[in-house]
Order: sequence, then structure tokens, then C-alpha cells
Amino acid sequence: MGNAKRPDEFELIARFFAPLAEGESGALGLQDDAALLRPEEGKRLIVTTDTLSAGVHFPAEEAPGDIAAKLLGVNLSDLAAMGARPWVYTLSLSLPEDWQPSFLEEFARELGRQQEAYGLHLVGGDTVAGKGPLTLTLTVIGTVDEGGELRRGGAQAGDHVYLSGTLGDGALGLRVMQGEIDGLAGNHAEELLARYRRPRPRVQLGLRLAGLASAAIDVSDGLVADLGHLAKASGQDAVIEAGPVPFSDAARAAFALVPDLMETAFTGGDDYELLFTAPPTAADDIEGLSKELDLALTRIGQMGADGKDAGDVRVIDDDGREMTFTETGYRHF
Amino acid sequence: MGNAKRPDEFELIARFFAPLAEGESGALGLQDDAALLRPEEGKRLIVTTDTLSAGVHFPAEEAPGDIAAKLLGVNLSDLAAMGARPWVYTLSLSLPEDWQPSFLEEFARELGRQQEAYGLHLVGGDTVAGKGPLTLTLTVIGTVDEGGELRRGGAQAGDHVYLSGTLGDGALGLRVMQGEIDGLAGNHAEELLARYRRPRPRVQLGLRLAGLASAAIDVSDGLVADLGHLAKASGQDAVIEAGPVPFSDAARAAFALVPDLMETAFTGGDDYELLFTAPPTAADDIEGLSKELDLALTRIGQMGADGKDAGDVRVIDDDGREMTFTETGYRHF
Repeated sequence: MGNAKRPDEFELIARFFAPLAEGESGALGLQDDAALLRPEEGKRLIVTTDTLSAGVHFPAEEAPGDIAAKLLGVNLSDLAAMGARPWVYTLSLSLPEDWQPSFLEEFARELGRQQEAYGLHLVGGDTVAGKGPLTLTLTVIGTVDEGGELRRGGAQAGDHVYLSGTLGDGALGLRVMQGEIDGLAGNHAEELLARYRRPRPRVQLGLRLAGLASAAIDVSDGLVADLGHLAKASGQDAVIEAGPVPFSDAARAAFALVPDLMETAFTGGDDYELLFTAPPTAADDIEGLSKELDLALTRIGQMGADGKDAGDVRVIDDDGREMTFTETGYRHF
Repeated sequence: MGNAKRPDEFELIARFFAPLAEGESGALGLQDDAALLRPEEGKRLIVTTDTLSAGVHFPAEEAPGDIAAKLLGVNLSDLAAMGARPWVYTLSLSLPEDWQPSFLEEFARELGRQQEAYGLHLVGGDTVAGKGPLTLTLTVIGTVDEGGELRRGGAQAGDHVYLSGTLGDGALGLRVMQGEIDGLAGNHAEELLARYRRPRPRVQLGLRLAGLASAAIDVSDGLVADLGHLAKASGQDAVIEAGPVPFSDAARAAFALVPDLMETAFTGGDDYELLFTAPPTAADDIEGLSKELDLALTRIGQMGADGKDAGDVRVIDDDGREMTFTETGYRHF
């Protein structure tokens, strides 16, 4: 479609975006000045926004479907960390000068798939032909019952620390993409890449943690940094026991090749798993939830164990020695 | 501050953005994964998003305060056109590689002023160091009483067409900025420039039009194009009488120098005035509202006057002749 006439914004809306608004009458078919939404009575709203930019958050040549999945995934992960049910979103696209309609076609198709999987709809947006690389901003609104929200600041001394899924696959996937893990088997490389490209926001888990978890955050900056955010907000320190931390087979294969990647797993970002705390009395319920959702929920540490400063996070290996890292989390600039 | 150490994202939030979240407890101090908002019972939500990009929507060297005012202004204008009261917003900034803290300082200071003027608060956002020009996306949420919303599609045959303020100042201001109006007096040039740089969203007017206006839209693409959008959504044609259309002294001075600029006024965008329709029975109330708000609300045309196709808009001069234009509105690409 390299030489196809490019549609104007009104045609873009009709062709690619209006279909994504079907099913939510408040979107007004993307035809009015704004969306007109009726919030469910008694619910609170959870609102978050994230921007992804080509060359920073994904390579410029990334597949349109992967970009769509990542954009929605990182935003839904924030909702999951607050225990919210996805409802609606707005999308802003700043397109590069050489954009092609085929890009938007594949991009919108994947958004449609994600909408179906997570139960939300597009209700507004803006598309501009910019002078720079593709830059996308998504703002998502979810709903949560009064008091059902998960916060970062509710952890108490003695609470257990849990992690969903496995640690480090996202950050290791980025290393695979950058060609930094020589000799990794193809299936392992593919698996890690997929985890980096397509986050699996733990929306169902977030919804089920109301009443169980005392605090929650998603792992986007890295385990150590994000537990630090949670611990600081809760006025506690925290200890992670490295022994029980769950890793995928692909991650273990990567560690076997490059032992230093263990640090990447603990401090790298992009996992989009949920990190949460719960009192010891909730242990059985959490085990039951893990079975029900068929999702590992592993106890990896404890809050307030060392009486250190709020926000202090230590990682202890099987021999009781503290592990030290050169970087403790994703640096935003 | 050219060589000052640049703060990381956490410092940016604390220094520039967290103060803008004070006053809205649901922002959680911008410290959690998302905002947690309690919508007022029985209200509907109005949600809109707009993106501005350097080199497309404003010059790269534009003053930070002007960029902030324009970004918030264009979004609030969409709320005004729906009759909504501003409530909260999220802000995404994709900064150029050479961004300076002084930019954000001035930018945030103006956001604070605008927040105070329009009664809304920042509740979330994202800041990324991009590889392209400054690109900003704002998503604003307003509230409206059930049934109090203004829509594009409610105009009836015989309704009068009204315009707030004066026509064309924004588009003429852009021409001034581009150096295309030689000989214009300094005060007139300044006035037009200010209208282009700093939209004055008609939020109060929008709130007061509930129950009076049958349809509304803001003039962002240009009078002829935007009345076309309203007319099409309403299933009507429309006629504008050029005679009564209100112009500022600065615009009249520009027309005297370059008569072709009259076309710019009718078809150019960026005015951010409200264009609305109302039944003839509302005429006295609208006149009263105009006096109360100290804002011109001028009857400039009629809906369904010619029995043409829905969306057809004709402009008739004082002699009853149809005026024709080479471009009827802002082209988005």
C-alpha cells in the first residue's frame, strides 16, 4: 500500500477507530466533541495514562500488533495493580510523516482483540501527523467498588510479599531483542521476546485481590524498585528471599549462559506481573486463588522484617547473604 | 539553567506536577499506579483528548506558558461544546532530547493558573524523553447533569445559528505569526496573535446553554466546516448570513490590508468559540445570557433554510449572493 492515497482524519476514524467504539454507546460513535459516559452508581473510577514512543519503548520497526498489545497492556497493568475493572479508553496517535494505512489497519485489529479479551472500549482520541517518531498515548478508565481498590500504601509489618507469574522475563526479552544473549535456544528466546512485546496484564488477579491483599503494585520498573515504592508508601522496609523467587525455564536457561542476567531479572522492568502483600492469615486463600486462576502466586518475602528505613529493600540469597545490584531499577531518563 | 543537572521522572513529579494535583484527593498525590476518583452521584462524564505537537500545532520555540494555555484550552473547548464542567485531567509529555527543567517550570506554572481559572486538577500523567519534537497529550474529564449535555445532532429546521465572540481571530493570528499580514498595527497584530496562542474556552457559556441550545460545537476546524459537522449530525442544511457575523477591530484591520483574509476568517480554525443553535423562542434568553456573561452571542444564520442535503452550508453576503471558498476547513493531514 506504499503509494495508496492516505485517508484524512475523518476517514481514519470511520475506517479504523469507530468500529472499536461499537458496544459503548457513550462513545457517540466518535462523532461528537467528546464522549458522554454514565458511570455505574457507587463505583469509583481508576484513571491512568501511559505513553510509548518509537525508539524509546519499542523499536521503530516493531509490528503494529505488538505495539498495540504493549500500549494497552502497560496501561491495563496499572488498572490491575489498583484492582480495577477496565471500562473505556482514549487513544492519541502522533504518526510519523511516512505512516501507512496498513499500519493502522493491523494496529486497530489488535486493539479490537485486546478489547474483547479485557472488556473495554475506545471512546475518544486524536490522530496527528507529527514531525517525529510514532508516539502513542493511552488513557484508560476502570471502575472499582468503593473500598475495593488496591493501594501501594497498605502493607503492615509481618505481611507476606507475593509475586504473580515469573520474574524477569520481560527484561530478559529486551536483552534477547538487543542480541545480548548468545546461544539461547530458539523456543526460549521466542518466549522471552513475547513476554517483552506482549505484556499479560493481571486484570483478573487484581479484581480478585480485593479484601485479600493489603497493598499492590505492578512490576514495571523492576522488582527491587517497585517493592521499594510499595514499601516506602507503606512506611515499611522489606526483605526478598531469592530462593523461592519463581523463574521461567527460559529465564533459567538465560542465567545458565550469562549468570549476570540474574541481576537483570531482579532489577529490570517490563514484567507487568503483580507484586502484592497480604497478612499471613490470607495465605490459604491466596493459594486457593492461585489454583483457581492457574497462575503462580509465590511468597517471596516479608514486610518490616529488618526494622530498616521505610522503602529499604534487601534481597537475601539461600545462604542468608545480601545480594547487591549495580542498578536497582529502570531509570526513566 | 542550560547545564543544570536534569531531574529524573520522580523528581519531576514531585517538583512540577504533584503541586498541580493538590486539591483533588483522588489524585493520590500522583504517587500510586493510577488516580482513584469518586464521580458525583447522578452526573455523567464527558471525556475528550487532544494532542499538540511542536512544528505542527505550534512553533518549536513557542513560550512554555503559551503551549500550556493552548493545550488546556483546546481540550476545555471540547468540554464547553458539550456543556460540561471541567473536573480532572491527565497529561502526557514526550520531551525532546534537549529539554530543560526551566521549560517544565514555566509550563507547570501556567497549568496551575489555568487550573485555578477553570476549576480542574491534574490527576495523572506520564513523562518520557522521546526522540522527536515536544508532543503533548491531554485527556480531560468533565461532568454534566443527566440530560444537560450539548450535542451536535439536536438542531431542528428553523433553529437560529449563534456564534460566541468574534470570528477568525485565531486563524488570522496564525497568519500574523507566519508574517503574512504586512502593515498591521502592532496592537492589532498582538491581539490576533494572543487569540491564536491562548484560546479562551467558553466553559461558562457551555454550562449555561443547557436547556437553551439545541446543538453545539466549538469552532476548531473553521466556521463553515464546523457548522457542516453540526448540520450533518442534525440531518439539516444551514445558511450563514455574512452580514451580521461579528469581527474584532483587529480582524477588520487585517481585511482592509488583505481582503482575501475574509476567507481565512470564515474557513480557518483555532477560534475555539462556541457555535450553537437554538429555537427562535430562546432568542430573548440568549440575549439576556449574552449581557450577563458580557460575551457577544450573535445570530449568524439559520438551520434547514434551503432544504439542501444534510451538512450543506452556504454563506450569503449582504446582497444575497453566495460566497464561495477554495478551502472550507482545516485539513487534518
